[in-house]
Amino acid sequence: MKKNQPLPESKVPDIPQKILLGPGPSMVSQRVLKAMMAPMLGYLDADFLDVIDEVSSLLSRVFQTDESLTLALSGTGSAGMEAGLTSLLEPNDTVVMCVYGFFCERMVEMAERVGANVFPVRSEWGKPFPAELLEKELAKHSNVKMVTAVHAETSVGIRQPLEDISRLASEHGALFMVDAVTSLGGSEVAVDRWGIDYCYSASQKCLGCPPGLSPVALSQRAKNVINQRGKRSTSWYLDVGLIANYWENHVYHHTTPVTMILGLREGLRVVLEEGLDSRHTRHARNGAALRAGLEGLGLDLVSPEGYRLNQITPVWIPEGIDDNLVRETLLRDHNIEVGRGLGQFAGKVWRIGLMGESSRSEYVLALLAALEHILPSVGYETPMGAGVTAANRALSEWVSE
Amino acid sequence: MKKNQPLPESKVPDIPQKILLGPGPSMVSQRVLKAMMAPMLGYLDADFLDVIDEVSSLLSRVFQTDESLTLALSGTGSAGMEAGLTSLLEPNDTVVMCVYGFFCERMVEMAERVGANVFPVRSEWGKPFPAELLEKELAKHSNVKMVTAVHAETSVGIRQPLEDISRLASEHGALFMVDAVTSLGGSEVAVDRWGIDYCYSASQKCLGCPPGLSPVALSQRAKNVINQRGKRSTSWYLDVGLIANYWENHVYHHTTPVTMILGLREGLRVVLEEGLDSRHTRHARNGAALRAGLEGLGLDLVSPEGYRLNQITPVWIPEGIDDNLVRETLLRDHNIEVGRGLGQFAGKVWRIGLMGESSRSEYVLALLAALEHILPSVGYETPMGAGVTAANRALSEWVSE
Repeated sequence: MKKNQPLPESKVPDIPQKILLGPGPSMVSQRVLKAMMAPMLGYLDADFLDVIDEVSSLLSRVFQTDESLTLALSGTGSAGMEAGLTSLLEPNDTVVMCVYGFFCERMVEMAERVGANVFPVRSEWGKPFPAELLEKELAKHSNVKMVTAVHAETSVGIRQPLEDISRLASEHGALFMVDAVTSLGGSEVAVDRWGIDYCYSASQKCLGCPPGLSPVALSQRAKNVINQRGKRSTSWYLDVGLIANYWENHVYHHTTPVTMILGLREGLRVVLEEGLDSRHTRHARNGAALRAGLEGLGLDLVSPEGYRLNQITPVWIPEGIDDNLVRETLLRDHNIEVGRGLGQFAGKVWRIGLMGESSRSEYVLALLAALEHILPSVGYETPMGAGVTAANRALSEWVSE
Repeated sequence: MKKNQPLPESKVPDIPQKILLGPGPSMVSQRVLKAMMAPMLGYLDADFLDVIDEVSSLLSRVFQTDESLTLALSGTGSAGMEAGLTSLLEPNDTVVMCVYGFFCERMVEMAERVGANVFPVRSEWGKPFPAELLEKELAKHSNVKMVTAVHAETSVGIRQPLEDISRLASEHGALFMVDAVTSLGGSEVAVDRWGIDYCYSASQKCLGCPPGLSPVALSQRAKNVINQRGKRSTSWYLDVGLIANYWENHVYHHTTPVTMILGLREGLRVVLEEGLDSRHTRHARNGAALRAGLEGLGLDLVSPEGYRLNQITPVWIPEGIDDNLVRETLLRDHNIEVGRGLGQFAGKVWRIGLMGESSRSEYVLALLAALEHILPSVGYETPMGAGVTAANRALSEWVSE
């Protein structure tokens, strides 16, 4: 029996520090990690309930909402996605989904599993979703329960404008659900102004925390829909009605991940001390520098001008260049992680993330310098210094819009 | 707009240290908290995949299984419960559930939400479940897909023997699913020997980690059932088939809660360095001392001799004594948290947990001494010194069985 064998040494006893420029998890604020060293508290302890209330209040600022209930679910961003779909949809409800990337497709799969009537409206990956397509689809249905969109599609690097989609949802009396996993804390997410009924995010991208929590903003209307369901949601664990009752009324549901919540509280304070506007500007400046540098190297960006995410930049892998070899060399020789492509874009793009603590000019320059070192050795000719020079110029000339 | 208002100070900037003797979260090993200070890693980083493999291997020792796949789900114990029920059951599958407490009832609710044909077999709270009841129920069905039980029912303090239930499940060709949330790491959990197909636990009880992860052991048979489902599970996030594919084959599913996993790795090493047998003995010794002390105070234990959990001890609140007042005074004046009753037992019992890092003789003695101070002042006469004396005697006379 294994239990009596001697305990083997860990292969990786000490976790090395790496520069994480992938799609997340991003690097974590030291303040957050220190906050997580706190002693444990009970999930109904009065001190901890004060923390819960504070986290909710801090989240309402970050989500820019006075009207929604804000909370953090005990799971990753995908749990936030599933909680929204299972709590707001019942079998045979009609949901129309804007689909233009890998995470949009994940939403489709989850909604199908709920047993909803799912109408995905697909558009080309790497381009913003045209609201006209949604308009056409909505015109075919009389009772659309919900419309969904992804604000920052991490797989394709698209910052999707939400105003038109929101207006169309509203005109059809539908709820509007938005994935803000990659955007929240890195660019404007205005829940009230954009009329979002269910907005979910994740702790490990632009909020500077470890993965494992999904911040959510829930409108009064969405709450009413949940409270008036005919049939209980298929999920108890992610039943947003029950979870809201803990955050609002402190009624026990499941054991809250106390340590993660303490980390999130500190992470949100870090975000708000920097200031949302300054933080968004930092992400924009570093994103612009990265894009200038990549173009300086002669690489082609995936997403078009005007719709590019500052949080993550997909770039086409040049013809004949070995995807894995470049990423492995970056990590092994330069200690930098970048992301691979997903779905249709697997093997075709690299995805470079600059989110939260990872969005720093020194990392942009380090990555570009490392690429200048690696790319020629794998057969891609690029003028020496062109990437770093272009990025440095962009950083110097940066003017906030 | 709130976003521009000055950030208010935290009401609880520094988290106070309390003695947590409730139903969990329990206190956390300092080694675990330090391990969680490590830098972030990507969830497909080779170093982190080594960590994943190590955690799986450590879990197989703690679950005492050579045959099951062991992994940790990205949610609390309730997520482990839901993952098992949604992944193993399809709508209209027959599941027979042994029900003798609050968490058994939670399983019933979850299974109903899946759309299974749920046959709960209920027995008296505070007593072990009689296997004959299950036998009778099983005799009524021809195609039982699964039988479920809770090993350590936290709400009633029952250590439920599993051998007979396992045998009956096996005789009827049914899968056997077990809740080991409160038992794992505090008393024997023998997955292979007890023929358990799906066993789930939680990080925050006897494993000495923060809440937020659910360790799971999945038999080959259960895996086959999942792989051969006719219809996809209602849950994507908790689809054990997809999650197993990450743990076994390192295929991306969702962003792993890296920091929590690093904490769990250290927690499991702490458990195994102490040794499972020594750890179980420690829990047994402190549990026995607590019971002796409570009886010394003249209080009545809920569960009968032979079936008492060492991890959590429910005790009847004496007639006329104010439940909340005692618990609040314990916390305010003596910094000790104990648990309240749940469900049928709400307001009727206190539940005293001695789990993982919280299972220490000094906490047992501190609690009993504090009760001796408080109880007379709320109208319950008890001979001065009787609780502490009885507990001290039990500690001195302890002989491991």
